[in-house]
Amino acid sequence: MSLLVAGWVAIDEIETPFERREGSLGGSATCAALAASLFTDVRLLAAVGEDFPETMLRALERPRIDLAGLEVIEGGRTSRWGGRYHYDMNSRDTLYTVLGVNERWEPRLPPGWEVSSGLFAAAGDPVLQQRLMAMVPGARVRMVDTIKFFIDGARDELMKAIRAADFVSINESEARELAGMPSIARAGRALLDGGSKAVIVKLGEYGAAYISGEDYFVAPGYPLEEVVDPTGAGDAFAGGFMGYLDSVGVIDQQAIRRAIVYGSTVASFCVEGFGPERLLTLEREEVEQRYRQFRALTHFEVEG
Amino acid sequence: MSLLVAGWVAIDEIETPFERREGSLGGSATCAALAASLFTDVRLLAAVGEDFPETMLRALERPRIDLAGLEVIEGGRTSRWGGRYHYDMNSRDTLYTVLGVNERWEPRLPPGWEVSSGLFAAAGDPVLQQRLMAMVPGARVRMVDTIKFFIDGARDELMKAIRAADFVSINESEARELAGMPSIARAGRALLDGGSKAVIVKLGEYGAAYISGEDYFVAPGYPLEEVVDPTGAGDAFAGGFMGYLDSVGVIDQQAIRRAIVYGSTVASFCVEGFGPERLLTLEREEVEQRYRQFRALTHFEVEG
Repeated sequence: MSLLVAGWVAIDEIETPFERREGSLGGSATCAALAASLFTDVRLLAAVGEDFPETMLRALERPRIDLAGLEVIEGGRTSRWGGRYHYDMNSRDTLYTVLGVNERWEPRLPPGWEVSSGLFAAAGDPVLQQRLMAMVPGARVRMVDTIKFFIDGARDELMKAIRAADFVSINESEARELAGMPSIARAGRALLDGGSKAVIVKLGEYGAAYISGEDYFVAPGYPLEEVVDPTGAGDAFAGGFMGYLDSVGVIDQQAIRRAIVYGSTVASFCVEGFGPERLLTLEREEVEQRYRQFRALTHFEVEG
Repeated sequence: MSLLVAGWVAIDEIETPFERREGSLGGSATCAALAASLFTDVRLLAAVGEDFPETMLRALERPRIDLAGLEVIEGGRTSRWGGRYHYDMNSRDTLYTVLGVNERWEPRLPPGWEVSSGLFAAAGDPVLQQRLMAMVPGARVRMVDTIKFFIDGARDELMKAIRAADFVSINESEARELAGMPSIARAGRALLDGGSKAVIVKLGEYGAAYISGEDYFVAPGYPLEEVVDPTGAGDAFAGGFMGYLDSVGVIDQQAIRRAIVYGSTVASFCVEGFGPERLLTLEREEVEQRYRQFRALTHFEVEG
C-alpha cells in the first residue's frame, strides 16, 4: 500500500512559554508523512525552495517515505510560519505566514503515483485538494484537512472538496464555525447534511470525535505530563489515522475506531518534542505500547 | 446504604445566551442529592431561610431523599447565586453570591445520621468539610468538592480536608491552580503527592480524568446536541459518582471507573435542562440506557 501525503513542507519559528526555536522543520505534510510512515509506505508530494536546508532534507529521508514528489523549485523560497503559544499551550497566535513556493505550486505526480492506495490532502487550497483527489482515482481512502483561512475565504470550494473525500479532519473551533453550530455533535451532523461522508473533530488535548452516518465514536486525550510543543499534533493525528487505515485489509467501523486511537497516540508523542522532532525517533513498538496503555486507561465494563 | 450529601440549597438566577431564569432551584447539594438518589438512599444536610419557596421544597421531596437534615433557619435568608454564561457555554461570570444562612451554618445531624455509609461534602468551607467527615466516622467513602474561592482563601485547610477524604473532585482549571501545574496529569500527581488519595478532574463537556496511586482513567464527554444550562453539572457528576459507589458491594478500581461513567452520564442529562430541572424527571432506566450508549460510543479493540 502507498499513501500519498500532499501539503506543505515548511520552516517554522516557534515560541512556547518555555522555549523558542528558529529554523524548525515544519509544514502540515511533514508531520503527517512522518506519522503515517510508522504504519505504511508514504509518498510525499510537496514543494520547497532552493533555501531548504540540507539537514531538513536528510531528516525527511526515511525508509518508508518516498521523496520523489518533493519538488525543489528553482529560485523559490520555502514556505515559513511563525507562531507563539499562550501559557496554557491550547491557544496560539500566528506571527507570520510566508507562502513562498506554495503561493502557486502546481502539484505533479511522479510516474506511477497515480496508482496510490490512499490520499491525505493536508490543509491547503480546496481547489487544489479537489485536483489531488482526481489525480488518484483508485485510492481506497481519501481525507482532507482544513483550517480557518479556507473556511473564511473559500467555503464553497471547501465544501466541494469535503464532499469528494471519504473523511474530513477539522479542529473543534473550525468545525463549529464551518457548520455554524455551537455543539460538536450538531456541527458534525450539519457537515454530514452538507454532504460529507465522515467527520473527525480534533479536540486537541481532549481527544477526538468521529461522526458518520453509521457511527459515532469519542476518544479522550492521552494524559501527558509534559507538552513541549503542540505544533503539528493535528497533522500527526491525521497521518497516524490515514497511515493505519491504509495498512489494514478491511476498512470497517472497528478499523476506523482503531485508526482514531492510533492517530491520537502518534499525536501524543508529537507534542513531546519541538515540531516533528519526536516523530523522527519514534518506533512502531512505542506506538503499540502506548496504544495498549490507551485502551487500559479508557476501558470500563457495563456490568459490575 | 445511606449517602449523606451536605452543601448548599440555594435560589439561582441564570442567564444563558438563549434564555434567562429567575428563581431557579439551585445549590451544590441540590443537584448532587438528586443525582445520587437515582442510585441510593440520600440524606440531605443543608440550610435554607424562611424565604425558601414551598414549590422548591416540594421538588426536593423524593422517595429516596430524606429531608430531615434540611434546616429552615428562623428569620434567615436562603443563599442566592446569579450567573451568566458566555456564548460557548463553557465559561461563565458570577453576577452575585448572597451567602444568607450559609454565612454561619452549623450543620447538625438528625438522630441516626452519624451512621451513614458515605459522605459527599459539596464545595464549601474546608473547616466545615473536615467537621462533616468527623461526624460520620464509619462512612465507607467520603468525597469533597471545592471551588476557586477556597483554593484562593483557605488553601491549607482545604488540603487538610482533601487529605482526610477518599476522593476530591475538582474542575480542570482549579486543579491546575491548586497544584500549580499546567497539565492535568501533573496536577493530579502533585495532589497525590500532597496527600490526597484519589483525584477526579472534571473536564466539563470533555469528560473526566481519575488519578490515584493505583489507577489512571480518562472518560470522554457524552456528545450532546444541545446544552440548555451547564449549572449544576459538576455537582450532578459528583452525586452520580458517589450515589453509584454507595450502592455497590465492593469498591474496586472497576467500580470506580463505572462510577465515573455514571457520574458523566447523569451530568449529561443535567445540562439538558435549567438547573436541576431534568434531574427531577430522570429515571434510572434512562441513565442505564445512556450508560450503555456511552460504552458503545467509546469502545475499541486492541486487535484488528
